Amino acid sequence: MPHVVVQYTANLEPLVDMSALCKEMATTLVAQKDQGKPVFPPGGTRVLAYPAQHYAVADTRDDYAFCYINVRIAQGRTDAMKKKAGDALLALAQKHFAAAFGKGHVGVTIQIDEAPGQVYDAKHSNLHPLFNK
Amino acid sequence: MPHVVVQYTANLEPLVDMSALCKEMATTLVAQKDQGKPVFPPGGTRVLAYPAQHYAVADTRDDYAFCYINVRIAQGRTDAMKKKAGDALLALAQKHFAAAFGKGHVGVTIQIDEAPGQVYDAKHSNLHPLFNK
Amino acid sequence: MPHVVVQYTANLEPLVDMSALCKEMATTLVAQKDQGKPVFPPGGTRVLAYPAQHYAVADTRDDYAFCYINVRIAQGRTDAMKKKAGDALLALAQKHFAAAFGKGHVGVTIQIDEAPGQVYDAKHSNLHPLFNK
Repeated sequence: MPHVVVQYTANLEPLVDMSALCKEMATTLVAQKDQGKPVFPPGGTRVLAYPAQHYAVADTRDDYAFCYINVRIAQGRTDAMKKKAGDALLALAQKHFAAAFGKGHVGVTIQIDEAPGQVYDAKHSNLHPLFNK
Repeated sequence: MPHVVVQYTANLEPLVDMSALCKEMATTLVAQKDQGKPVFPPGGTRVLAYPAQHYAVADTRDDYAFCYINVRIAQGRTDAMKKKAGDALLALAQKHFAAAFGKGHVGVTIQIDEAPGQVYDAKHSNLHPLFNK
Repeated sequence: MPHVVVQYTANLEPLVDMSALCKEMATTLVAQKDQGKPVFPPGGTRVLAYPAQHYAVADTRDDYAFCYINVRIAQGRTDAMKKKAGDALLALAQKHFAAAFGKGHVGVTIQIDEAPGQVYDAKHSNLHPLFNK
């Protein structure tokens, strides 16, 4: 964690550099600090983006676009840190979607969920040790 | 919101018109009324459908098909409205999957989740104003 | 249910046989028993895997890989069964990802969620009857 999934209408593909957005979101999350300490573990940070070929938005009368960014985090962060992290991702999205907003009707939503309904959690990783040196 | 994600085995692609299903689900959700008022904001309604190339269903002894429809909504609707919206989507799915059910073994599940674990929510949109005129 | 979704960075595609992993995860879940009775209904068991073309992992300085396995289950299983099922999936993942771990830095996470935020649930299926004979 954090586990970021970006789900979006495929009509955004030519308008937004999704790989750059993924990269900057990961970098932004890794850079979050609380009293000088990292808020999220670098080795557990990942962003995955999925265009949907089949989609429908609003009243479906135009080729509207939508992007939904969901961030799943583990428990343990303060409310202030959650808001700061969310606001940082929102600022990034606003930058990356500026051109798309100039060309048509777009909705972007960012939500952070804290371990929803979680009853089991296991990790198998050689990424974490890389950043715990 | 509502945020609808349709996840399905790719063997359904030739049997179900997923773009039409997305469109009708969006239209159905936008049309939901409670005492004459819209239950969901049109500018926040989106449906995204994702076929999975890699999949396995049940005991994997046949090329079974599955479709999972998840609807995420914000808090604030009555239990009766949630049931009415869910039942309307179920009726739509039954119509669109009739041919597939005639040809093989299929499972369709629809679930509505209300803001699960949500600790942050932000919107950036020029879609909402379009429908608030 | 169980509803298993595997989300992974596309750079894992040549390193892991995702179709085999899906198949073995379904078989493993269907085989889970509690006092001789199946823990999960075969006709409700499905695994769907999605590679992400756009992604970023950790500090994004290398082509790191990640795989997130989410299992959604209905309520009603004991804590011991949830742990046993999760551990069985973890063992499977460790086997299937061994080659990938030998070649680079990979993170694998498995989480089980129990009906998170669920307010509506409907099924339309001719798969369940097939296994209730």
